[in-house]
Amino acid sequence: MILERNHQIPIKRQIYQNLRDKILQGGLASGEALPSTRDLSSQLHVSRNTVCEAYEMLMAEGFVVHRPGAPTRVATDLRVLSGHASHEEEPEKTHTTFRHNFKTGRPDLTAFPIYLWQRMMRKAMDELRIEDYDYAGPEGSLSLRTEIAAWLFRGRGMRVLPENIFITAGATQALHLIPALLSSSGKRIAIEDPCNPGLYETLHHAGSTLHPIPVDEYGIRPEFLEGGLYSAVYLTPSHQFPLGGILHAQRRVKLIRYAREENAYLIEDDYDSEFRYLGDPVSPLYTMDPERVIYVGTFSKVLFPAIRIGYVILPQSLQRRWCDLRLYTDVQSSPFEQAALAELLRTRKFDRHIGKMRRLYQERRAALLRALGDIFDEPWKVCGDAAGLHLTVQFTSRIFDASFLRHCRAQGLWISTVEYHSIVKGLHRDQLLIGYGHLTPEQIRDGIMCLKKCIETYASAKTSGDAD
Amino acid sequence: MILERNHQIPIKRQIYQNLRDKILQGGLASGEALPSTRDLSSQLHVSRNTVCEAYEMLMAEGFVVHRPGAPTRVATDLRVLSGHASHEEEPEKTHTTFRHNFKTGRPDLTAFPIYLWQRMMRKAMDELRIEDYDYAGPEGSLSLRTEIAAWLFRGRGMRVLPENIFITAGATQALHLIPALLSSSGKRIAIEDPCNPGLYETLHHAGSTLHPIPVDEYGIRPEFLEGGLYSAVYLTPSHQFPLGGILHAQRRVKLIRYAREENAYLIEDDYDSEFRYLGDPVSPLYTMDPERVIYVGTFSKVLFPAIRIGYVILPQSLQRRWCDLRLYTDVQSSPFEQAALAELLRTRKFDRHIGKMRRLYQERRAALLRALGDIFDEPWKVCGDAAGLHLTVQFTSRIFDASFLRHCRAQGLWISTVEYHSIVKGLHRDQLLIGYGHLTPEQIRDGIMCLKKCIETYASAKTSGDAD
Repeated sequence: MILERNHQIPIKRQIYQNLRDKILQGGLASGEALPSTRDLSSQLHVSRNTVCEAYEMLMAEGFVVHRPGAPTRVATDLRVLSGHASHEEEPEKTHTTFRHNFKTGRPDLTAFPIYLWQRMMRKAMDELRIEDYDYAGPEGSLSLRTEIAAWLFRGRGMRVLPENIFITAGATQALHLIPALLSSSGKRIAIEDPCNPGLYETLHHAGSTLHPIPVDEYGIRPEFLEGGLYSAVYLTPSHQFPLGGILHAQRRVKLIRYAREENAYLIEDDYDSEFRYLGDPVSPLYTMDPERVIYVGTFSKVLFPAIRIGYVILPQSLQRRWCDLRLYTDVQSSPFEQAALAELLRTRKFDRHIGKMRRLYQERRAALLRALGDIFDEPWKVCGDAAGLHLTVQFTSRIFDASFLRHCRAQGLWISTVEYHSIVKGLHRDQLLIGYGHLTPEQIRDGIMCLKKCIETYASAKTSGDAD
Repeated sequence: MILERNHQIPIKRQIYQNLRDKILQGGLASGEALPSTRDLSSQLHVSRNTVCEAYEMLMAEGFVVHRPGAPTRVATDLRVLSGHASHEEEPEKTHTTFRHNFKTGRPDLTAFPIYLWQRMMRKAMDELRIEDYDYAGPEGSLSLRTEIAAWLFRGRGMRVLPENIFITAGATQALHLIPALLSSSGKRIAIEDPCNPGLYETLHHAGSTLHPIPVDEYGIRPEFLEGGLYSAVYLTPSHQFPLGGILHAQRRVKLIRYAREENAYLIEDDYDSEFRYLGDPVSPLYTMDPERVIYVGTFSKVLFPAIRIGYVILPQSLQRRWCDLRLYTDVQSSPFEQAALAELLRTRKFDRHIGKMRRLYQERRAALLRALGDIFDEPWKVCGDAAGLHLTVQFTSRIFDASFLRHCRAQGLWISTVEYHSIVKGLHRDQLLIGYGHLTPEQIRDGIMCLKKCIETYASAKTSGDAD
């Protein structure tokens, strides 16, 4: 470990960062003992107190555990940064079907008005002229950008100029390109922990070094953001995925201040803010400082997954490089889907569809809460706010680990946990994630009954020593 | 410079590589003097002969120039690897229109049967079911992959299993993902020089270190490929862009052998092999060893530029990683365009369209050759084979530099040069690139007349000291 004396980052932070990087990159393995504070302090020629403080910071974030009379050890089960290994817990790519499937982030396709999309596509096919079959630029069609700007204003109160909106091949592409967009700084990207593993993999595959920042019920905790380290902070302020909280106002102010002071960007992923069932729509972070926020929006949750159109709103300073990157990635988006979507927005049939889906999902959410109340005797608690397509539920007396998930799957139930979505493990072991958007009230009820049975049979198997 | 003694790469090659990297990355600027062979040999503790040999290799490839009695200097005008600067010569992104436009790689959109594509899209919209609006996997639709396999067999004699074909968002996306696909080796990618600047930028933006390999009338020159350096070699064997040669059979064998010995891949970009006007279709390199060739195909040249569908044929060893990369880049391609294209291929209307376009382009090529013959008195020579959408013409008594191109543009003529497409400058200064696919015989004739006038006025201005 090389420490830089007289650096603006205090020595204890340097020790902490160094150890954290080693842990996240696998240089210090799960369960491995850290050197004693006495040894490390003499080795580094710093006071023992400084080392103790660094260890305490690691402990507070769950990177290491300490039991009296034993050495401080790396927490077990920390997700390794290469990511792939942890995927084995989620059979995302296998096509097994489950009797009860509480997968998150799935809109209800059966409620999608396919005839409406067909009509928009036919109209697009009739109206597009041969010039539209030529290259049209990486920004996207001006008519779609104009309609998105109008929708952002009427749906979310955002004032955005069409020329600051850039069409993408879905939110995934936006997140794929952002690391390259910001790479010149050479800094890392801070991300929420827990978060969506797909998001994690996208940023990681794009070459970012990622640093987890803890999240609580009020969203990301800005006090964990250190100066000088990050080119950007990824966050889901309107509805944290997966914990469900709305980012607290004071934290918003702190984040904007951080971004300004550090010349960093806030990546605001507004992945499902259309579906909010209580209270006013949350004002996006973007409105606080359009020059420091990169706003990422998607249509695949509100329309259908296969639509490969999303958008990103970019500060002016990044727009030119963005166009270059997009041009050399896949040139541009399909003119047909862009035209159809623009027409769907222009006619406001999009708004009506969202209104309908919001009511549908709200009913399903209520059905899920009723089913949980009817079926479970033991205490449970909903985390987060009334929004989105999934519910985070805490069962304070339970621990949901990987072997529990396997047990569920063997019973035909697909469910996930906040623990699975966590980078630093061990902090969210009693929370389940229940995706309900794609399920009818009956399917929800049946699934919750199955869940209860799974919890009970797993507990009794565990007691009798049978479980996995 | 750090040399590794006892390394498998001889010392002279190490010196050569080191200097070449410095030149390409801008560490040694255009016109800068290299140290004398005497100084460098004593500094590196190697024989002066070794340094001389390294300098001669650099000279043979045009990286440095040497005049008797003067120090060896870096050639002027070498393209710097960051690329952007050189783009100023081509107003690709400005929307200026030119009276005479010989841009390359443009299909004739006015000859595209838009009604046919509309019909295919409408049929796709009618037939796709709601399940097709869900995520369908990064490989692409099986029916499209099956139709592409059938087309490759009847059009090019290639036997490919549909499951080895992966749909992409155009050839650009294939080339965007390939560097990440091969990144684990940590090696560079060798590319043809001259080449398409868009290809260069795509691989460069994707994080590759690129090494130019000289091309002559028989394609890439395998004797310039060094062992141990490259994870892949990018090439256009059927119709080298821009020089137009077909890769010679002996070179094909050498390349395959190289790939096998080095555990490297050949990236075969078959960007316009549909349009071949003389002789049999060229058998793709792919057929020689499907486990060592990555075959990249596109539809944007044969159909229309805005169609964001291409494909890549991958060796089995790379397929799993490919799917991962695509998933975290933009998930998948549009189901609508995939279905419409599959139908176009299935009904063979695609084949008929290509046949029609081939005849059209062949006539235009003939018109271009006639116009050149009628209008120019001075000697000129066609380079390359009778294929594609552009012609490379050599005027042995002329030098076409950047100021000539500006002169043409001022006269309303857009044209490009092989020199512009070269990484190592100075080797192709007498060759013009004339894109004719999108022009009528009259437009071609008018353009060539304008070209002649430009050449003459430029020469006389140059003589009188007025040029530029």
